[in-house]
Amino acid sequence: MGEFDLIGRIRARAGTRGDIVLGIGDDAALLAPPPGRHLVVTADTLNDGVHFPHGTSPADIGWKALAVNLSDLASMGADPAWCTLSLSLPQSDAVWIDGFLDGFLSLAERHGLALVGGDTTRGPLSLSVTAMGFVAAGDALRRDGARVGDDVWVTGTLGDAAGALALLERDPTHVLRARLDRPTPRVSAGLALVGLANACVDVSDGLLADLGHVCARSGVGARVEMQALPASDDLRGSFDNIERAALQAGGGDDYELCFTAEVSSRDAIARLASSLDLRITRIGRITGGDGVIAVDAAGAPWRPPRTGYDHFG
Amino acid sequence: MGEFDLIGRIRARAGTRGDIVLGIGDDAALLAPPPGRHLVVTADTLNDGVHFPHGTSPADIGWKALAVNLSDLASMGADPAWCTLSLSLPQSDAVWIDGFLDGFLSLAERHGLALVGGDTTRGPLSLSVTAMGFVAAGDALRRDGARVGDDVWVTGTLGDAAGALALLERDPTHVLRARLDRPTPRVSAGLALVGLANACVDVSDGLLADLGHVCARSGVGARVEMQALPASDDLRGSFDNIERAALQAGGGDDYELCFTAEVSSRDAIARLASSLDLRITRIGRITGGDGVIAVDAAGAPWRPPRTGYDHFG
Repeated sequence: MGEFDLIGRIRARAGTRGDIVLGIGDDAALLAPPPGRHLVVTADTLNDGVHFPHGTSPADIGWKALAVNLSDLASMGADPAWCTLSLSLPQSDAVWIDGFLDGFLSLAERHGLALVGGDTTRGPLSLSVTAMGFVAAGDALRRDGARVGDDVWVTGTLGDAAGALALLERDPTHVLRARLDRPTPRVSAGLALVGLANACVDVSDGLLADLGHVCARSGVGARVEMQALPASDDLRGSFDNIERAALQAGGGDDYELCFTAEVSSRDAIARLASSLDLRITRIGRITGGDGVIAVDAAGAPWRPPRTGYDHFG
Repeated sequence: MGEFDLIGRIRARAGTRGDIVLGIGDDAALLAPPPGRHLVVTADTLNDGVHFPHGTSPADIGWKALAVNLSDLASMGADPAWCTLSLSLPQSDAVWIDGFLDGFLSLAERHGLALVGGDTTRGPLSLSVTAMGFVAAGDALRRDGARVGDDVWVTGTLGDAAGALALLERDPTHVLRARLDRPTPRVSAGLALVGLANACVDVSDGLLADLGHVCARSGVGARVEMQALPASDDLRGSFDNIERAALQAGGGDDYELCFTAEVSSRDAIARLASSLDLRITRIGRITGGDGVIAVDAAGAPWRPPRTGYDHFG
């Protein structure tokens, strides 16, 4: 299968939307952004063996390549619209591509997102996605809006993906593996948090690291109650308390939303959790200091063994 | 240097524009597209040893990574605005990054384009850029607008980059090398061709292959006069006529614009060439058949030894 057959195979399944004037097949896509809204743009790359274990199924790779980008749109409160995909493959392989598209496009369809362009090249397995969405002007959830006294919240559970990674050699098909391979971008939650959250970030580097980004950009500090961090039963069943806490606080790849909101919004957030059927847990407070302090049940400082994933650390 | 130092280094030099609400530093960029115009989006990746020779200078890699994307915007007649950059690096290296940014950002500044986001990851050297620009609704130059009787034109000269590649082992610093490493995206020409050109493509895969894409999308054929193809003096001085013709017709990486226009536009195109100080050469005609036929000076069919670069061919 040559490059143009491969592109044709992708194009035939790329999906469409009413605001796409011209999709895949020209030098560039032509798109009609809705008037008066801001365009939200994010780009993330996954490399074989770095962002997913070597040997991950093509469908899972496709899902994750889009999910990590949708998660960034979600954390801004944006409505997903379009994406481009740059695909580097060691060799052209129709079965691999079909599997990849199964994962990628099933997630795209779920969020009404269409693939509008990109390219395919020969090279080490790598997926670069740029995702675009919209938000009303002034409505975006940003990292720089946290205020002293805000509650700190997180969606879903933490540490599952890092737990799967920790168990990878011993038990590569552990039940937690699904959370590593198929993270759930919290798009509906992000949209619903517009007007409720003061600041928001997605948990990709690890909770304390990502909350640290919010604090740095907002000029505030945060105090996190370690015993409040939400854990799945699968995570509890697989690690002791010390290991588990480290995975929850520092493990990357969760793709949950961590946000801050005023104390007066607690009831609204509880209703939101109920309507979305999504766990949303209050885990701490924004403070006047700087940096993130994690404390144990006795209020003593908890020191994480790692504070997030630094690709060049 | 860690990942966040690296991102900080990029962010400090990324440039800005009045339509950037929020640039690098959050989960995504917030951008304000101009009302009533179409957004033009393209994505292209360069891999080490595939799209540039191993050992190419970081500044040249930076230039080329953006140039190939600007060339796609140019071929649509779009005005460049923003881009994202996903950078995979084997190791974090401040000197490399600074050199890369020198090349990337000098070209970005020349075209008023700002870097608004992206990511940096550890992996084999690879650069994925998504570039965005604008065009008035209905004005975009597309591949599907060629009409029977149109002239076929090309900007600049053809075959220089392919010539440099052919000479790479024997003479890696040959004067043609500059055209391989630092292609000139024809942004001004693309903008000026709006309203003049019926169809347009950039020459990245090779002239006959790219013109073939135009023909396929437009449902027409083309006849190309081989002796009309523009060649630089450097190319003429380095190859015999047979080799040169093959490089001009089939060599990739030219990043010139190939466009079609009505016969009545010849004077306007001549004036445009003069005002842009850019060679624009008439090389053939759009015909009622399908596919591209290249003919020699005697009108006999010329058969290219290759018809463009297929990454998986």
